[in-house]
Amino acid sequence: MTRQILPFALVALLAACGSPPADDAVPTEAPRVILIIGDGMDDQQITIARNYLVGNDGRLTMDGMPYRGMIQVQTVDDDNPSTPVYVGDSASGATAMATGRVTAVGRIATVAKTNERLPTVMEMARAAGMRTGIVATSRVTDATPSSFVAHMSNRYCEAPRGMVREDPIIPQDSTDCSAEFIANGGPGSIVEQIANLDIDIYLGGGAGRFADFVEGSDSVTIRDAAINNGFQVLESKAELSGELAPGKVLGLFADGHLPERMRGELAEFIQREDGVPIWPEAFSCELNPDFGETPTLAEMTRVALDRLDNEAGFMLVVESASIDKAGHYWRPCGSIGEMQQLEEALDVSLEYAAAHPQALVLVTSDHGQSAQLIPRISDLAVQNFAPTGRFARLRTPEGGVMGISYATNDSPFWEDHSGVQVPLYASGPGIDDLPQYLLQTDIFHIAATHLGLSDTWPGQ
Amino acid sequence: MTRQILPFALVALLAACGSPPADDAVPTEAPRVILIIGDGMDDQQITIARNYLVGNDGRLTMDGMPYRGMIQVQTVDDDNPSTPVYVGDSASGATAMATGRVTAVGRIATVAKTNERLPTVMEMARAAGMRTGIVATSRVTDATPSSFVAHMSNRYCEAPRGMVREDPIIPQDSTDCSAEFIANGGPGSIVEQIANLDIDIYLGGGAGRFADFVEGSDSVTIRDAAINNGFQVLESKAELSGELAPGKVLGLFADGHLPERMRGELAEFIQREDGVPIWPEAFSCELNPDFGETPTLAEMTRVALDRLDNEAGFMLVVESASIDKAGHYWRPCGSIGEMQQLEEALDVSLEYAAAHPQALVLVTSDHGQSAQLIPRISDLAVQNFAPTGRFARLRTPEGGVMGISYATNDSPFWEDHSGVQVPLYASGPGIDDLPQYLLQTDIFHIAATHLGLSDTWPGQ
Repeated sequence: MTRQILPFALVALLAACGSPPADDAVPTEAPRVILIIGDGMDDQQITIARNYLVGNDGRLTMDGMPYRGMIQVQTVDDDNPSTPVYVGDSASGATAMATGRVTAVGRIATVAKTNERLPTVMEMARAAGMRTGIVATSRVTDATPSSFVAHMSNRYCEAPRGMVREDPIIPQDSTDCSAEFIANGGPGSIVEQIANLDIDIYLGGGAGRFADFVEGSDSVTIRDAAINNGFQVLESKAELSGELAPGKVLGLFADGHLPERMRGELAEFIQREDGVPIWPEAFSCELNPDFGETPTLAEMTRVALDRLDNEAGFMLVVESASIDKAGHYWRPCGSIGEMQQLEEALDVSLEYAAAHPQALVLVTSDHGQSAQLIPRISDLAVQNFAPTGRFARLRTPEGGVMGISYATNDSPFWEDHSGVQVPLYASGPGIDDLPQYLLQTDIFHIAATHLGLSDTWPGQ
Repeated sequence: MTRQILPFALVALLAACGSPPADDAVPTEAPRVILIIGDGMDDQQITIARNYLVGNDGRLTMDGMPYRGMIQVQTVDDDNPSTPVYVGDSASGATAMATGRVTAVGRIATVAKTNERLPTVMEMARAAGMRTGIVATSRVTDATPSSFVAHMSNRYCEAPRGMVREDPIIPQDSTDCSAEFIANGGPGSIVEQIANLDIDIYLGGGAGRFADFVEGSDSVTIRDAAINNGFQVLESKAELSGELAPGKVLGLFADGHLPERMRGELAEFIQREDGVPIWPEAFSCELNPDFGETPTLAEMTRVALDRLDNEAGFMLVVESASIDKAGHYWRPCGSIGEMQQLEEALDVSLEYAAAHPQALVLVTSDHGQSAQLIPRISDLAVQNFAPTGRFARLRTPEGGVMGISYATNDSPFWEDHSGVQVPLYASGPGIDDLPQYLLQTDIFHIAATHLGLSDTWPGQ
């Protein structure tokens, strides 16, 4: 591990005051990075969540962080990697942050067109002797978390049986990662790569993927392979909150993604009667009973921080996945509940950081989403102008009504992402020197520099 | 004028270094505020403009400013002012910034429900002996600029003949400001209030409003009234760039709003053939020939700064209006051209500020707009999923294609605003102490504090 770089903030202070600090001001603690990713968390999602959770004049925890900047999302065409595409996905966004390299939509830490595997900051931290961990409310094999530890040409090649497929509903959406089968000299599916990982703690959903057999076997599951690789596998909140054995931890708390914490009505296309729109009833969000005994993101984050806290430093990635997933499927309450989960995980992280001056906490997003906060009825109060997309009217606890529109396409399956720039919040050492505008690949550089790894980066 | 407040930056430096600065570090220059408002300039508009004007990896001038934060848009119901409404307009947004008070959509520096007139920061600066000016690419009577100097229950009461009206197209959109007629003891229409102003320079469009007769007269135009009030009226770029006489300046460079600098195709609803969408041809923007000899926003800003530069300080408001107006009417190139105008006006402002250490430059927006940057075709490349709103495919100079969607309603007249939080950029004294999250009313406090006016604010 290389640690020759003065923290940004210290350099700034030196420059401002013109005299060196006393020796005891030099930090002796190892660096820690907590990177919190709100999947699809753009300014629309933040504003909607703020209005609902704390009111129009209220403040979220992230609102109180000392640094806020913007991140340009970056992605390129897979056939012509010199052509920008402007709207990314979780795979391209997380790859840019994890590797410092721009790639195409759908790619997990691999280069557009060439499929070369890209080293990630988390792999570099591991190689330098630091601890590493991931917690997510998605399947652990989903694009955002896996981009920090796995490599794949197509994010949908999560498990062996899915590596060659034609989607029955959307025929154009076919997948062929057969070149990456272990049998063909590749690294195997994403879940197999995760089962083979050297990582201290990895918590989320996706137990179903681990029930598949290892490629080429009809008796050894990928879960078996993970256990053989030294993982203790946790499956419940009770196990998570109990005494954990030493060694690596894999938590799989749902078959698929973890359930969303809040639920409510879906946004729907506006119906008309004699040309006049029938405005949907305003509704409020409620706790999702399916959430039940699911560990919260904050609980998982707390356990991960306990596990990772050590004298050599660490990198932890925390993903609130369903801001995006609920956005894709017209569930405003789902997104709001996940924003709340992210806020709580941030509270836990800031509490940890308060006691560890070398902990750098970053909060950002991989890409924008579809939801827009628009008038509760038309701006001009003209009843026969209705939103063109799916629309919900959400009653806030403070008594207002938000109009929330999802209108990127007319697909019955899926709302599109947006290419809008996304937020970056930060607290901790170095933030005074962060410019307020950054490219998505800069997240890699910030993390790698703070961890003292930047001179090991092959791209520099 | 009260100037007892140490500039923020100095306080911060003192706190950081623990020793007072030499006496010669105390600024002796009077404070200046340049407030640049991109109307409807949200993060979508900024990202779209960046991708088009400087490329996906490029940097706008605003991207290089040292401070960036976010502003919560604030507006309330006019009948129930304790109820938040979440989506504002230029009137409510500019009123919040100008007066530090939250009001209802459509109101110009007046209180929701009660119609009480609110003092503006620009009026306070004037009363304290500072110079004041406004430049805008809209009519000078439009909501954003007029909220800093006029007071009216309804933004559409711009001229005497429009103060009682029923919209012929949209019957629900009626207006009655007759209580505010001069004959009824009121201040008269917005254009009459502007003609009566004591302001050093006011540049924009809207000559047509000044051709109306003064209320109650059938021979004296409002333009005449402005001249009688001491204004020299400029009507061309040549006059603006020539030698100006001493005294107040009113520039009216178009009958209505100033033309947009760039033009291109309109976004349109996607047509289908046998259920398959017909994707529109990608296009690029071109200079709008109608722009012709219109002064640019940068040229107007330069003249205004020359005029306002003085030893007692000043406040200048610069508005790039048609980011919003082009957004309302599905013209992506119009918005991009206006973003370019704002950038140039910012360049001029930063150049001025570089020579004047007490110049505080703020760049923000009054509200979000409708445009969304979405995939150039569907995210899943499935040809039969089309955007539900109006859609354009814009080819960037670097060879990519942006999909731009406008989908807040199905009105043939007008796209709605969004309630998303909007950006604040800043450079100059005090910015190190600005929190990264603010309410829209805080703009008033920042400007008034920097100008040394905050203890004269009646609301505090």
